[in-house]
Amino acid sequence: MPEWRKDPILERWVVIAAERGKRPSDFKVPREDRKGHECPLCEHREAETPAEVLAYREKESESNRPGWWVRVVSNKFPALHIEGRSDVGKQGVYQLMDGVGAHEVVIETPDHRKSLESLNEYQVGEVIRAWRDRSLDLRRDTRFKYIQVFKNYGNAAGASLEHPHSQIIATPMVPAYIMEKMGGFTEYARKTGSCILCGIIQQELRDSKRVVIEGKNFVSLTPFASRFPFETWILPREHQADYGHIREEQVGDLAFVLRSTLKKTSAALGQPPYNMVLVTAPVNLASGELVHFHWHIEIMPRLTTAAGFELGTGFYINPTPPEVAASELRGTVILCEEAFNNNIEVVEKYV
Amino acid sequence: MPEWRKDPILERWVVIAAERGKRPSDFKVPREDRKGHECPLCEHREAETPAEVLAYREKESESNRPGWWVRVVSNKFPALHIEGRSDVGKQGVYQLMDGVGAHEVVIETPDHRKSLESLNEYQVGEVIRAWRDRSLDLRRDTRFKYIQVFKNYGNAAGASLEHPHSQIIATPMVPAYIMEKMGGFTEYARKTGSCILCGIIQQELRDSKRVVIEGKNFVSLTPFASRFPFETWILPREHQADYGHIREEQVGDLAFVLRSTLKKTSAALGQPPYNMVLVTAPVNLASGELVHFHWHIEIMPRLTTAAGFELGTGFYINPTPPEVAASELRGTVILCEEAFNNNIEVVEKYV
Repeated sequence: MPEWRKDPILERWVVIAAERGKRPSDFKVPREDRKGHECPLCEHREAETPAEVLAYREKESESNRPGWWVRVVSNKFPALHIEGRSDVGKQGVYQLMDGVGAHEVVIETPDHRKSLESLNEYQVGEVIRAWRDRSLDLRRDTRFKYIQVFKNYGNAAGASLEHPHSQIIATPMVPAYIMEKMGGFTEYARKTGSCILCGIIQQELRDSKRVVIEGKNFVSLTPFASRFPFETWILPREHQADYGHIREEQVGDLAFVLRSTLKKTSAALGQPPYNMVLVTAPVNLASGELVHFHWHIEIMPRLTTAAGFELGTGFYINPTPPEVAASELRGTVILCEEAFNNNIEVVEKYV
Repeated sequence: MPEWRKDPILERWVVIAAERGKRPSDFKVPREDRKGHECPLCEHREAETPAEVLAYREKESESNRPGWWVRVVSNKFPALHIEGRSDVGKQGVYQLMDGVGAHEVVIETPDHRKSLESLNEYQVGEVIRAWRDRSLDLRRDTRFKYIQVFKNYGNAAGASLEHPHSQIIATPMVPAYIMEKMGGFTEYARKTGSCILCGIIQQELRDSKRVVIEGKNFVSLTPFASRFPFETWILPREHQADYGHIREEQVGDLAFVLRSTLKKTSAALGQPPYNMVLVTAPVNLASGELVHFHWHIEIMPRLTTAAGFELGTGFYINPTPPEVAASELRGTVILCEEAFNNNIEVVEKYV
């Protein structure tokens, strides 16, 4: 019998088609060809990108030259522009605004052949710091109300560049998805006086059937109302509204949990295309406004195609119960760390 | 300069990247191979589907035998089941429910090689009637609160069968997307005493730059805050909340506007994959509850990939301004009606 499950924060119901119980081998993930490293994000090609807005680099090295290990540049083809006004205009019944915003690319490593999860833990930590540092800098422009960090991996997930990278877009309004999440957090806090995600973390750790990795400061799990097969979320154990406030002692554990979760996903499914979004509290709200939020990362492998039903309802049909996905991911052990680090296809699996 | 545009009904903003101004030739749509007609939805294969729940067929013909021109069957692999209880259970903080619902397939023609827009106007009208008749029948089960009619065309749009077909899913709760739309309609009605879509139709017909086809009873246009390149909506000119109440004298004009809009889209873009959803008022609400709604059809070609930004924000980036799309579609004249009807690739374009 399939099951309807409601996302605990949103008015979003998901059909969990338990009897289909699709396992990793049911998803054909065509391995995407890598075209080598003739690419503008590579080391020694710094002149081909807009100037860097942040780089972690050797002390002696010059800006926009080799010697960096993480580098952030403006998007060469930005969806939004820094210039413009953020007040709303009218055209009859319609509202519109200048296309104000920031659009940056976080180059996660100089090495074209790597992937985020094949970097070592220290380097993943540096990527996490870059997301934080750019978030803190971008919010100094008080027109921006939200800093969206996200990553598209693989063609089918919308990535147009192979080189390991993530993106940051700052928007002059709070996104619809974040408004809804805030509504859910606020409503639950009003009723119970506590944070719903704090409650969920407790319940999931007690239950353990949807937990993938228990870190010291972070937990990864497959959410109860997973929209997608093998969807995972990473949550800080402590209540923290704003990703920008992540503390140095949390960074290392997030690097461990994020890297391990991605590695397991990649090994279980054969490096599937995926989208990752960092869901966090808005910035630059009116002073004194209390924001009920608990930031988290959502990782969504693209194994199914959201189609008419999803577009028409905002609901999802998921052929893999999250309990099955979590069990598969827990059972997936990376035996060939070396193969992985060198992007060799042979990755053994242990179930 | 790109532009932020707000959907007039929803809290959904879209970036219209006007300077990119992508035209049809910028979208590479790989033509999908058709594998012939060895398929369970074809005529003479009636025994391979579940029994028909509706068929328009020759008077002398038997159920589940040849002689039909439109046929509706239960989905052989339904996402939802008719049996079960529609009351909400609890698992700690979580809510869940039996996977109750109906899932049907509307076979739009016996002929495998056709597409919806290549059918003649009468036959498209029959498909429209089948959607209506199933909607009216399904709502007799008062557990159902919404009847979702949708169509996925092409692999990239999530279609797993080639044979021309659409789908109907009945859900025991009002979908999130419909709740949001209702909220927008209700809020506007409260403020102005009128329907926002009635207002939009007036403004668009005056303006005409986003109008694609003006029928007697229906209009098709590219919405002001289009999420996708070449997205089109079809709206009844008169205020009508519930698709199920479409009158016989409206059917013919909807067939004309729908067929022409799809033909133009198909000719302009080379038969792109697309999703179509029928957006209408919920059913079986508490009696006396006034529903502010104006039903419409949303047609979304799949030319871009919704990725991390869209998943993280609920906003969209659209590289083709709807004014450009409407102008291209208006200028697209089907010269080779015959070629089209026979699914021949040569479709000439007139700009």
